[in-house]
Order: sequence, then structure tokens, then C-alpha cells
Amino acid sequence: MNILQTKPSIDGYRMPAEYEKHQGCIMIWPERADSWQYGAVAARNAFTNVATAIAKSEKVTVCTSFEGYDTARKMLPPEIRVVEMSSDDSWARDVMPTFVVNDKGGIRGIDWGFNAWGGLVDGLYFPWDKDNKMARKFCDLLEVDVYNNRHFIMEGGAIHVDGKGTAMVTESCLLSAGRNSHMSKEEIEEVLKEYLNVSKVIWLPCGIYEDETNEHIDNICAFVEPGHVVLAWTDDETDPQYEMSKSCLEALDKETDAMGNKLKVTKLPIPSPQYVTEEECQGLIDFDGEPTRIEGYRLAASYVNFYISNGAIVMPAFNDPMDHVAADILRGIFTTREIIQIDARDILIGGGNIHCITQQIPLAAKR
Amino acid sequence: MNILQTKPSIDGYRMPAEYEKHQGCIMIWPERADSWQYGAVAARNAFTNVATAIAKSEKVTVCTSFEGYDTARKMLPPEIRVVEMSSDDSWARDVMPTFVVNDKGGIRGIDWGFNAWGGLVDGLYFPWDKDNKMARKFCDLLEVDVYNNRHFIMEGGAIHVDGKGTAMVTESCLLSAGRNSHMSKEEIEEVLKEYLNVSKVIWLPCGIYEDETNEHIDNICAFVEPGHVVLAWTDDETDPQYEMSKSCLEALDKETDAMGNKLKVTKLPIPSPQYVTEEECQGLIDFDGEPTRIEGYRLAASYVNFYISNGAIVMPAFNDPMDHVAADILRGIFTTREIIQIDARDILIGGGNIHCITQQIPLAAKR
Repeated sequence: MNILQTKPSIDGYRMPAEYEKHQGCIMIWPERADSWQYGAVAARNAFTNVATAIAKSEKVTVCTSFEGYDTARKMLPPEIRVVEMSSDDSWARDVMPTFVVNDKGGIRGIDWGFNAWGGLVDGLYFPWDKDNKMARKFCDLLEVDVYNNRHFIMEGGAIHVDGKGTAMVTESCLLSAGRNSHMSKEEIEEVLKEYLNVSKVIWLPCGIYEDETNEHIDNICAFVEPGHVVLAWTDDETDPQYEMSKSCLEALDKETDAMGNKLKVTKLPIPSPQYVTEEECQGLIDFDGEPTRIEGYRLAASYVNFYISNGAIVMPAFNDPMDHVAADILRGIFTTREIIQIDARDILIGGGNIHCITQQIPLAAKR
Repeated sequence: MNILQTKPSIDGYRMPAEYEKHQGCIMIWPERADSWQYGAVAARNAFTNVATAIAKSEKVTVCTSFEGYDTARKMLPPEIRVVEMSSDDSWARDVMPTFVVNDKGGIRGIDWGFNAWGGLVDGLYFPWDKDNKMARKFCDLLEVDVYNNRHFIMEGGAIHVDGKGTAMVTESCLLSAGRNSHMSKEEIEEVLKEYLNVSKVIWLPCGIYEDETNEHIDNICAFVEPGHVVLAWTDDETDPQYEMSKSCLEALDKETDAMGNKLKVTKLPIPSPQYVTEEECQGLIDFDGEPTRIEGYRLAASYVNFYISNGAIVMPAFNDPMDHVAADILRGIFTTREIIQIDARDILIGGGNIHCITQQIPLAAKR
């Protein structure tokens, strides 16, 4: 593996959209007892269900600690590869490489800096050194070269692209005090353009209410095809999410994509508010003397947090009446893919959802 | 990865000879401060030299701890893959899978039990759980199925095969009290036949003087082609090695291989006795309150401990007059391969040599 100091756009590489063809998917086995209740027993089942659903149509590699290997190997089906790689938690989307491809069959990774969603300002755990090293190490494992951009703090969940020159991000996240606060919005946008090889960046003001990542884009809004996004939505004007989603809709309505087209916005309802229970809190150990969840805390539940595999939309279910409504909407959009809905309560408690715990490896094709 | 409870011979798989074509080679980064003097600084250079020499003609993967990754990545050339995998030490030959292939392009690993060369009887360190898990984990990484034979204690350095139905071992090692002492010689031979898919096992009585592995075969005698072995040798009748090598020669002279042919034996001289120095001992930390090396201890130096890569014989040098003699002998045998000699003092101090720190992955070809 070569560690590259150049930039993808200069080298003719671009980040493909998630709905383009994949060679596989990366996940990380859940183990942290302050993130995953009752020693991660339930989370392991949920992660296994997600991995199994994705493995129906693409190769899945699950990274685990030394200690986690035997259980992961036992629970995951044999077609899923399990490899040892130290992590601080299980958010493959945010710590694994963002992959870029060219039109000659080339693929490379981007190694962004990772500081647990805000470092010493408002990061969610300390230390985060193992997470920060994973992107480079996975490129090494995959035998692809890696762009070194560790001085720029970024997570995969903070960016979505349409594969046609457009990226989409939230201001709340990318302009947060704990990431690249020494840089202006214009400077940050320039880094995105250089590394993702896009000509247009769409900025939404915010994300999902109480989303601890400073409101990642991948929980609020996603491209489903060029020129078309799904936006997490509620019609309940008393819900704090209402104004947040409305401000995003207004931003989208004003925008065009890199090709100059207006965006079609499909509203995807959020489930009814999901609160942490007393029993769930009892199952979590404290972090640094403080509980990571308090009874009654509202979890940032959104159906937008789905993964697009080669053959399926792997999306969360919350045992909520909206589960079927959201599934039907995505079924109407992704007509060539199976809709697989997975009970995601035990992922949600950890602070994210199916998109957060997965990272696609695009298939690099010659054109 | 499937964990198989059947046996290679039943499934039509066999262990190829080392001189058959490889798809690659596995090594493990040296880190243990009671094995590798002065924090493994010199050993890292020697391992890097070995890996680089092998990488000239086949793919090399080096496994490292989380802590060792950055240094390994920095020192090893970019064409060598570095992956995280926890180990207790750095002996890829003994802890990595023994691979078997069939004639349909199939390849599988064997996961032997590993107990640090003798377990609680005369093993060299405790614990050895990380080492014991590596074979299975490397098969998972490589995406090949693995035969579970963990209840049988065996190391890769304890077996050599000719690829034509013959295996070669030492009695001192395979019949040692710390391995499978509940089994008879006949029962042990039967396991070798079933797992390596050989019809003949040649037993040499012993190996190299002071070899801490209970005298592995791979330090005393190796197949160089079907029907032809090299045997570590000294003409100095006052050297304890003289009687040991002589007894091996007598055993070989009496034997035929699986095809019924007498064996040609080429004598490969050993270097002059190699003793540990005071300075080297000072560079080692103690293990469990005892020094791992004492000044004046004779190291088990042998030129037989070479690795056969696709394009080269990667063999040790000891800064000894015999270095050139041994190289010339191997050059005369391996006429299509480059002879690459590497200063191996810093590997030898750890207790083994180039063959001990490498494990080939055969190329599975359709025939």
C-alpha cells in the first residue's frame, strides 16, 4: 500500500454514489459495553442480521478485536469474512475509508482524520486512536493505495454524493467547533471538492434532532438516484424535528445539483419518538464516571439511515406503525432491489443505525 | 470460512512441497522484548530484509499487533501487505496454517493445535493463546476453509513434504512429552498421513543441537526436489552435532520415499558454533523472572533453515566462512532460483531462522 499525498480529483478519482455497484461492504463487531447494552448481546444479533442481509448480494468483511473474534465467527454465517482489527467502537461508516474510483478499474481509499465526532470539544469518547487508524489499515488489507488526509476531520456519515458531481452535507456537522473550526466554510467545501471530486456541495442546515454526531447528513437526507433525495420528515409541528426538516426542505428547494437540475425531494416519515427505557440504561456501563444514556432520552431514529447493497435496501424497523409506510416508499423508489427491514432498536441505542455501521467498497470498473 | 471436521486426504487435498508454486507468503512482525534484543530493533531490520527478498517473486503479508502496525508499515516496502493480527511471537511457520490443495484449484488450511513447543512440559512461553488462534484467523482473512485439528499439537516447522506422498519429521519433536504424548508413534504417523495426504513418513531421530523446538525437522533436513534432501552436517567429530547428523544420515540411507526410491542426501555444512554474547543478553528482558538467553549459550544455527520462494532461495548468513560454501551448494541444486543470503544473526538469537519466520501459501492450480 502506498500512502499518497496527492488528491483524488487531481489523479482522476471520484467517490461513486452508494447505489452504484459494490465489490463489498465493511462492518465492525460491536463490543463496547458503554455503547451496547448488556454486553452487546442484543447488538450482536442486530449486526449479524444486517451483515447477513447485505451478504445476500455482496461480500461482507467484519472487523473485530482479538477478544471478539470467536463470537463473531460463531454468530456470522461462513460466507462473511471476519478479520482482526482493533477499534474503539463499531461505526464502520465513520472510521473506514471513503473509497474513490477512476474509469480504468482503479480504486483507492481516503484516510480522513477521525476524532470521535468532535474531539475534546464534544466528542463522544476518548481515546479514539484505534478508530483513527482503521481506514489506512483497511486499505492495506484490501491492497489499495490510500490518500492521507488525516489532518482534516471527517466521517463517512457526514457526506453523501450522487455520483454525478454533487455532494450533500450538513452545516451543523461540518462547521461544528470540534472538527475543522480553524477553516472557513469555503475552505471546507474546497477540501470536499478536491477529495470527492465533486463540483457542487449542497449544504443542509441541520440533521435529526438529538443526533450526537452533530447531525450527520446520512440520518436526515440521502440521494436515491441522481436528482432525487429522500428527506426524513414529520408533519407534527410540535416535534422539534418539524422545523429542522422544514429548514432542510427549504434549502433543497433552492438548490440545483452539479448538472444544474432541481432536486426531487421524497419525504420519508420518521417513526414516533423513540425513548431510552430504564431497563436499557441499566444494561449500559458508565463512560468516565457518567452514564452514556439517561432514561427518557430521545434517540435519533430515522428511516433514512439505510444501506444500499447491490441487491437490497437494508433499512431499520422500530416496531412502529411507520415501519411499513417507510418501507413502501423506498420500495417504490428502488424497484430493482429487495427491501429488507431489520429490527434496529439495539443499533439505535448505540447512537446510530444501519448506514452508520456499514461502509461500501465500490466496484472499480473499466469504462 | 467454513470450519471443517473432515480430513484432507478424504476430501482429496494434499500438502504441496515448498518448491511447488506459491501464491504468497505469511510473516509476523517481531515485537516481543524477551525474544528480540533491544526492543526488536535489529530483528525488525532482518525481518524486513527477508520479507523484501521474498516479495521479489511472490506476495507477502506481514501480520502485526495494533501497536506494531505503524512501524511495520513504515519499514516494509509498499508492495508488502501489513495486517493486524494478535500473536504471542513471530513464528509464522509454526502458528500459521499448513495449506493443502486439490487438483481442481481448491485450497484449504489446517489449524493444528499450538502450545509454544511443549506446553507446560517444556514450552518456551506462556500463554500461547494468541498464537493458537492465528491459523484459523488467517484462513478467514484469506477466505479459505479450514480443517479443525486443534486437539493435535503440531507446528509447520516440524514437517517437510516432497509433494509426492512423503513427509519427513524428527522423533525428538513429534514424540516429545509436551505435544501428543498420549498417542503412539503409529497413531501420530496416521494423523500425518490423513492430514498431509502422504503414504510415507520418514522419521529422523533428532535435529540440530540445542534447538529449543525439540529439534524441528526444518532446521536439520529439507527436501529440495523429490528424492533429494539437504542435511545439516559437520565433519568435526568433537561437535555434539556430529553424532546427531550422523544418526540422521544413517536413517536416511535406510529409507525410501513414497515412490520407493532411495534418497539422495546432500550434506550442507553448519557454520562454526554461534554463541550468544553478553551484549545480546543485556538487550533481552527476562521472561517470568528468568533470562531467555545466557551468555555463551550455543544457538541452533543451520543453513537448512532457508525459504524457497517462487524466484529465490532466501537463506541465512552468519558472517561465517561457511556462508559461501552453503550458498554455493544450494546454488548448484536450485539452478532456476536466485540465491539471496541475509544476515540472520538477529533472527537466530530469537531461536529460529528464515524458514521458521515464513509460511508459504501454495498456488492452487487446476490440473
